[in-house]
Amino acid sequence: MTQQWVYFFGNGQADGNSQLKNLLGGKGANLAEMNRLGIPVPPGFTITTEVCTAYYRNQSQYPEELKKQVQEKLDQVSTTMSRRFGDPENPLLLSVRSGARISMPGMMDTVLNLGLNDTTVKGLSSSSGDDRFAYDSYRRFIQMYSDVVLDLDRSHFEHLIEEKKAAREVRLDTELKAEDWQDLVESFKAYVKKMTGKDFPQDPHEQLWGAIGAVFQSWMNKRAIEYRRINQIPEEWGTAVNVQAMVFGNMGEDCATGVAFTRDPSTGEKIFYGEFLVNAQGEDVVAGIRTPQPINLRVKERDQSSLPSMEEVMPPCYQELVNIYQKLEAHYQDMQDIEFTIEKDKVWLLQTRNGKRTAQAAVKIAVDMAKEGVIDKKTAVLRVDPAQIDQLLHPSLDPKAEKNLMGKGLPASPGAASGRVVFTAEEAIEWSDQGKDVILVRLETSPEDIHGMHVAKGILTARGGMTSHAAVVARGMGKCCITGCEALQIDSKNKQFSLNGHQISQGDEITLDGSTGEVILGKVPTTAAKLSGEFAELMTWVDEYRRLKVRTNADTPEDTAVARRFGAEGIGLCRTEHMFFEEDRIGAVREMILAENIEGRKKALAKILPMQKGDFLEIFREMKGFPVTIRLLDPPLHEFLPHTEEEIQQVAQKLNRNADEIRKKLTTLNEFNPMLGHRGCRLGITYPEIYEMQTRAIMEAACELVKNEGFEIIPEIMIPLVGHVNELALMRETVEKVCLKICDEFQVKLKYLIGTMIELPRAALTADMVAKYADFFSFGTNDLTQTTFGFSRDDVGKFLPVYLEKNILPQDPFVTLDVEGVGRLVRQGTELGRQTKAKLKVGICGEHGGDPKSVMFCDKIDLDYVSCSPYRVPVARLAAAHAVLKENS
Amino acid sequence: MTQQWVYFFGNGQADGNSQLKNLLGGKGANLAEMNRLGIPVPPGFTITTEVCTAYYRNQSQYPEELKKQVQEKLDQVSTTMSRRFGDPENPLLLSVRSGARISMPGMMDTVLNLGLNDTTVKGLSSSSGDDRFAYDSYRRFIQMYSDVVLDLDRSHFEHLIEEKKAAREVRLDTELKAEDWQDLVESFKAYVKKMTGKDFPQDPHEQLWGAIGAVFQSWMNKRAIEYRRINQIPEEWGTAVNVQAMVFGNMGEDCATGVAFTRDPSTGEKIFYGEFLVNAQGEDVVAGIRTPQPINLRVKERDQSSLPSMEEVMPPCYQELVNIYQKLEAHYQDMQDIEFTIEKDKVWLLQTRNGKRTAQAAVKIAVDMAKEGVIDKKTAVLRVDPAQIDQLLHPSLDPKAEKNLMGKGLPASPGAASGRVVFTAEEAIEWSDQGKDVILVRLETSPEDIHGMHVAKGILTARGGMTSHAAVVARGMGKCCITGCEALQIDSKNKQFSLNGHQISQGDEITLDGSTGEVILGKVPTTAAKLSGEFAELMTWVDEYRRLKVRTNADTPEDTAVARRFGAEGIGLCRTEHMFFEEDRIGAVREMILAENIEGRKKALAKILPMQKGDFLEIFREMKGFPVTIRLLDPPLHEFLPHTEEEIQQVAQKLNRNADEIRKKLTTLNEFNPMLGHRGCRLGITYPEIYEMQTRAIMEAACELVKNEGFEIIPEIMIPLVGHVNELALMRETVEKVCLKICDEFQVKLKYLIGTMIELPRAALTADMVAKYADFFSFGTNDLTQTTFGFSRDDVGKFLPVYLEKNILPQDPFVTLDVEGVGRLVRQGTELGRQTKAKLKVGICGEHGGDPKSVMFCDKIDLDYVSCSPYRVPVARLAAAHAVLKENS
Repeated sequence: MTQQWVYFFGNGQADGNSQLKNLLGGKGANLAEMNRLGIPVPPGFTITTEVCTAYYRNQSQYPEELKKQVQEKLDQVSTTMSRRFGDPENPLLLSVRSGARISMPGMMDTVLNLGLNDTTVKGLSSSSGDDRFAYDSYRRFIQMYSDVVLDLDRSHFEHLIEEKKAAREVRLDTELKAEDWQDLVESFKAYVKKMTGKDFPQDPHEQLWGAIGAVFQSWMNKRAIEYRRINQIPEEWGTAVNVQAMVFGNMGEDCATGVAFTRDPSTGEKIFYGEFLVNAQGEDVVAGIRTPQPINLRVKERDQSSLPSMEEVMPPCYQELVNIYQKLEAHYQDMQDIEFTIEKDKVWLLQTRNGKRTAQAAVKIAVDMAKEGVIDKKTAVLRVDPAQIDQLLHPSLDPKAEKNLMGKGLPASPGAASGRVVFTAEEAIEWSDQGKDVILVRLETSPEDIHGMHVAKGILTARGGMTSHAAVVARGMGKCCITGCEALQIDSKNKQFSLNGHQISQGDEITLDGSTGEVILGKVPTTAAKLSGEFAELMTWVDEYRRLKVRTNADTPEDTAVARRFGAEGIGLCRTEHMFFEEDRIGAVREMILAENIEGRKKALAKILPMQKGDFLEIFREMKGFPVTIRLLDPPLHEFLPHTEEEIQQVAQKLNRNADEIRKKLTTLNEFNPMLGHRGCRLGITYPEIYEMQTRAIMEAACELVKNEGFEIIPEIMIPLVGHVNELALMRETVEKVCLKICDEFQVKLKYLIGTMIELPRAALTADMVAKYADFFSFGTNDLTQTTFGFSRDDVGKFLPVYLEKNILPQDPFVTLDVEGVGRLVRQGTELGRQTKAKLKVGICGEHGGDPKSVMFCDKIDLDYVSCSPYRVPVARLAAAHAVLKENS
Repeated sequence: MTQQWVYFFGNGQADGNSQLKNLLGGKGANLAEMNRLGIPVPPGFTITTEVCTAYYRNQSQYPEELKKQVQEKLDQVSTTMSRRFGDPENPLLLSVRSGARISMPGMMDTVLNLGLNDTTVKGLSSSSGDDRFAYDSYRRFIQMYSDVVLDLDRSHFEHLIEEKKAAREVRLDTELKAEDWQDLVESFKAYVKKMTGKDFPQDPHEQLWGAIGAVFQSWMNKRAIEYRRINQIPEEWGTAVNVQAMVFGNMGEDCATGVAFTRDPSTGEKIFYGEFLVNAQGEDVVAGIRTPQPINLRVKERDQSSLPSMEEVMPPCYQELVNIYQKLEAHYQDMQDIEFTIEKDKVWLLQTRNGKRTAQAAVKIAVDMAKEGVIDKKTAVLRVDPAQIDQLLHPSLDPKAEKNLMGKGLPASPGAASGRVVFTAEEAIEWSDQGKDVILVRLETSPEDIHGMHVAKGILTARGGMTSHAAVVARGMGKCCITGCEALQIDSKNKQFSLNGHQISQGDEITLDGSTGEVILGKVPTTAAKLSGEFAELMTWVDEYRRLKVRTNADTPEDTAVARRFGAEGIGLCRTEHMFFEEDRIGAVREMILAENIEGRKKALAKILPMQKGDFLEIFREMKGFPVTIRLLDPPLHEFLPHTEEEIQQVAQKLNRNADEIRKKLTTLNEFNPMLGHRGCRLGITYPEIYEMQTRAIMEAACELVKNEGFEIIPEIMIPLVGHVNELALMRETVEKVCLKICDEFQVKLKYLIGTMIELPRAALTADMVAKYADFFSFGTNDLTQTTFGFSRDDVGKFLPVYLEKNILPQDPFVTLDVEGVGRLVRQGTELGRQTKAKLKVGICGEHGGDPKSVMFCDKIDLDYVSCSPYRVPVARLAAAHAVLKENS
């Protein structure tokens, strides 16, 4: 039997269904499914993703049987629509779109109105009775086809239109008449001939195959590759091609086109939410060129729109749409994002898919649907993407802060962000590489901007609605975004914008509030995220399913408190060096470093002791009942010394020392590769008195609380940067001596653990030996990534962007754990450690502890806990639940 | 049955034999064996190494049965010597010495004349008829015992002697009379009482147990630990204690003591070689306080000594000694180092052991003995320590160079070295840590100096003979050494010396010729080592046994030629960056780096191309028929730019550029951790044009030779610093494109290999994937050690010495491969690579490729080759043969 490469749908029937997403792509599978549900969908067919894969495997050759199968299905479409492709009187026109397994909005090229030529345009004109519409459609087709299939510069066509408008002395496209478009069609064709040396194709079949080929080729274009990289979509999946009969939303005032969501994708509220434009093609809504109208009165009211809603303008169509959306949501058991077109009062559904949503909406919809009985609790938990909820947890603007409001736009993606204004994606990348927070300001965004949006803290556009490119992409990224800020006047050339009288230049700081749409001058302080009741409820479900414990990395009582509120079950990494930097103690730290001998160091350390002890007292109190892992001093000592001449002078004066002494010490301590230098336990070995002081501070704090306040504390003392078991053995001896002494002094029987951070390949490789002296392991995956890859995190900016761009690395290994390499060491180290001690407690405390993919890996290899920054604790909890639920599914 | 803790020997009988070295130590086993051979040895007993181990395991408690067993054996000694221990009339005196499995010269404490007290000294006086001798012996005993057992400062006793000499107005010890020594004994005892609060022990048994305890304790003293660390002797081995009846070489002119070798330990010549002193104790010879006399006429003549030889002074004793040495060498089938004492014309052998020897001597003795039929060829190969022959291969002084001779000493250890003068071990370490070559100049050396000797390039002493501490240790270390340079006058306080009118201060450069004993002013150029016929012969035997190929690391045609002469079978690592630094091309390299764009870089690269090609032509010619692995550019680009302001100005002028441009570029290229930065294939990925130029240079050179000169060449192009397979895949594509193009241009069918250096943990961990794109692997163990340990080789000086001192690391991992950690990655990487490609060629090209222990590991894990610096090629060849022979033995 021949393989079926092409699947028909239409008129209540379909070869495929929603189960065949991998084969038909998301869009194709849903078009088939909608047909099966009896929803009005323009008939068409889907060329499968397997054709795409075969095409790339076979030097851009189609499977042999494809042509024949396409023709058969095309005939079926003709029959259903009662129009023939290429028919001079009543031509069938087609849309050709891509459709991958996962929606990639705006990334894949689309051709509309395909089938028009010098002959069929006349047929369209007479059948629609609208000359202007026919030639407008034809010129749109030529423009799109030239751009997408013939690879000509789009701007030249726009230029010709501008010339025509100038000649006609009009301002808007809509003011051009049928004969103007007819003229333009001729100019367009002439331009195509000039540039390609060939006539614009008149044969509809040649047009069709050209478009199909372009879709397949667009799978490998730069934007698509970029999107796949960011979203980690495998190249092998391929795209399907959907060929569908055209219906027109732009044939007059009884026509419309729109986009809607079955629930509010921004808040999750259970309202039918959407936008539409009368007499327009679908692309007009998404591109954000005209500001669309609300779909119903409720939305109109809520968003304070002055434009008439569809419910008012086209009540029967609106009612039909309501019936359809309810049927779709019930069927898919998830919030749907639908595209529709109304052609002469007939509603056509062009697409349905699970709608992208903000984190807030995702949580609310999942919890609501579980309560409505539509889905179960496990499904609700799985419905919320751990990577996304991060945005819920970030601070919003401090309501009490003064705000110098400049203007307002649409609240396209919630959250708040401050940053320096940049006007291009390139600048966004450049500035952010320099460690600056940036806000990307654009007239409107396009797929070319994705990389820049990725690094920006927030996005502000002058045009576009809530479903514009900027809005959809920003929501997906969990980034704050304001769209449709129409008062915004951008002067790209001079790199500045004005907004209601405010003049802002590149580099100036502004603040966005994505939840209100407010654009604010300068930087505004923020407050902690307030989490919804639904969120709290969801998190209790999450905790029912997860196995992995979630701790936090916190160095201060304040961070500790935040983390506790987010549900942290202890501290996995308390860095003691941050305490060294505080104003009141850095002097003593420097005195210690400048000391000539052990006595001098001890004297200075004695000054630091009570302060460190004070910190630990507070942290232990905040974490009452939960374990606290404290890492002894890690960074090289030169980090604590002043570096500029001015600072040196100041410090010299403050410490009453000679500046030369400080300079000399700096020279002595200077290192070629500080990352691989005199730090971690190497400090503890060369200056044991430092670790002794720190241990004393920890143990005195713990003993005091146990003795005087009836605490239960098991301090976990962590020795950093161990590479050889002997280092740990020696440091354990040093630390343990102090521990026993303090317990004796306080007459307290206190259990304490002494463990190590596994952050060097050698420690992981010899973990069986290291485990002999360790009560616990904590994988420091930041440094482990640096040494395993040989990447300095501070220097990687010079080549990592190229690596990601060229797809050499699938992702930034400092963000998502490199399972293949670094992960192998983590797994191997855990296994070896547990060979020696079966019940060895093992966790991870690098940045990866808050990265969902990495958390899932940690669950898989049976770690006991992950530890992450306070704001990522809920992310990690959710990811840990996903890990269990996905493993069992 | 009770365990035997104590082994008797004496009078032609012995409980032990030479097989029991592990139990009795080297000295004890040989004392037993000599007894069995009928050689006259003072009777005694050996307390086993197991007692030492038990002692340390059991909180410094002896095994229960030990006391009784010691008493039994002591009674046997009494019987044999017909003297009783503690007998007031005719007392038996004892020596107590340590004796580990492997000789540790000067490292363990010794007590002589034990058993003397206020009573027995009178018995000794009357039985010897020599008052002076008796009291001199007694004071020596008190001195030694106080130092070693009671831990009192030795210098105070010397001070009392000086006072006595001053009072008597004499200059030499020998001028003091019996009553002077008797007085001193009283002062010594008073001092001991004052310092310890107790009388000097009078009970001989108390003395004996004190000395035994001191020997065991000395196993853990700092010097012993240091020696074990340097020589990698496990602590668990422990030491035995040898208690032996005293015989006296200092009872008059018919007494003597000496040290001899059965062949010349310096040259290997088959002559009976040694030194002795009339009327002296053994320690006097070794300590180098008196310059000893030659053992026979032949030595006297050869060394142009003016002192009378033993052959002349004591002919019958000499003849007996000759009989004994011949018997011993025949028995042990190796060159023996013997100690003897003549008491009243009776010869006693105190010790025999396999003699330490220079590399030259080791080679000659091994080859000679094989030819004499004493040993077989395999044994001969195994007799030469690969670590030692290094010294044969180093350059000697250029005979044509002008030499400003300052003076002459004994040629104690061959080789030549220049360096800056230092006067203490501490300074030697300090200066050498700063990267300076030093010559350690001492009156005489002692075990405290070992660490300083280890880092010095050469050692010069004013006192001591060919068997002095300095000489023995330097030979063991393979270091150039001159001893007994009596004209040398050292002024330690002012850190200077004078030698025959030359005034030299600390830091001045001098040169030593260890083969002639010449001390030369300033630095003298050197020439390549001339290797003996025996060496050449031995190396042919070596090559019969080894499996591992030995290549060299060479970047220049000159190095390549040297390596070929040493038997290198190809180049394992040709670093191309060194070529970039040459005077005539660094300008173009800098131009390339400063270029603003790819065109500018290509223009500059085009200038470098012909020069690199020229290098490769020459190297291929030198290595005709052997493989050459060329590594593409590795170091970060900033290494090629000038760094000081002065250099920047010069370069700016030379390149006709603005100095600001250079400064700006330096700032851009500056890195926090260059080791982990923008280097290796990361350069190739960001600037493919560099690798393309280098590939072109390699391939054009190869094709030209193949086409025009009929060569067979398989260039091996190596991509450095690969961490992820995708890096190699991309670089392979880049390089291969050029390769194919050049082959096409030249119309030559040339086979080439493209492989990678495995020098990052991630590459080793994912070697199965990396191997897909690699024709070969070469482990870059230098960088792999840096990343696996997280040690920057440039910064490790701040803590590695402490690590070695505290025994945290058994050895410097940059010298000897860390088998446990880094080695595990090498093994794992090799296995994974060969899972993908069974016949993958795998080698190693780090410094470890020339380190014998590391070479043996490489053989064990089945690598195909090691690659090392040219002068270490023979070392690696020999080590490779040892690996095979030891595995099969």
